[in-house]
Amino acid sequence: MPDRNRPGRGSPEFWIWPREEIRPRLLHTMIRVKDLRESLRFYIDTLGMKILDRIEVETRRATTVFVGFEGYRDGAVLEIAQKWDVEQPYTHGSGYGHVALGLPDLLGTVARIEAAGFEILEGPMVLIEDGPLVSFVRDPDGYSVELLQIEAG
Amino acid sequence: MPDRNRPGRGSPEFWIWPREEIRPRLLHTMIRVKDLRESLRFYIDTLGMKILDRIEVETRRATTVFVGFEGYRDGAVLEIAQKWDVEQPYTHGSGYGHVALGLPDLLGTVARIEAAGFEILEGPMVLIEDGPLVSFVRDPDGYSVELLQIEAG
Repeated sequence: MPDRNRPGRGSPEFWIWPREEIRPRLLHTMIRVKDLRESLRFYIDTLGMKILDRIEVETRRATTVFVGFEGYRDGAVLEIAQKWDVEQPYTHGSGYGHVALGLPDLLGTVARIEAAGFEILEGPMVLIEDGPLVSFVRDPDGYSVELLQIEAG
Repeated sequence: MPDRNRPGRGSPEFWIWPREEIRPRLLHTMIRVKDLRESLRFYIDTLGMKILDRIEVETRRATTVFVGFEGYRDGAVLEIAQKWDVEQPYTHGSGYGHVALGLPDLLGTVARIEAAGFEILEGPMVLIEDGPLVSFVRDPDGYSVELLQIEAG
């Protein structure tokens, strides 16, 4: 969790949100990344998320960025952390699986991901009868991300 | 993603939800676990989540359980997967961080976690002025889980 006790570092909404919200909730999922710019190219430029907060945590020599499709009130978000002094790639064990995102245009998104040079692991495919289109892709640090088709509106 | 094309296996709400919902969203975070009963003792009995769906996926020889505080419509949930034929503990790389949960009674929850024999990694503590109480705990498979105090209502 980042140090927010610095003027101008991140919006107060992040702290206000859980205080207004009385129901227990999944707030965010945190991953560490090697190259934040490349991560933002994936999650922002390609997947269409927005930066909700960016905090330079000097005491921990790290940058933390919260990204999501809407705001903190509209569901869980992704916390992306980059340590300034870590240059080697992060490793992946066998335990952690993926984050699953529901998207209104799965085919278009997967095409954008491929055009941007990121890896498509599986799909787009219909795994089960009457089930949604699904695809698994890989983010710049090798995290698997599941994409699920939602209605386009 | 589990095979849902079997009568009586899981609620249709899981598939209906993303079809009704037109906004992109983080749907779930998936982790693999060695001992599902122990995971449920942690996430259900101790943290207070509910089982939203449990699917025995015979073609993949795996059990998948979706757990959350409310339903699928109220935010992201956790997908817990146990492969029937995997007996060794899963490994953890350096990349994946944690899931963060907002809770109305952090001190009580941490006390319950400790009493249930699970590990408290940090806190409860106030990391920053005017910030919420926070604690990091470890689930049965070694995943770090961040707990944040929200208002009790």
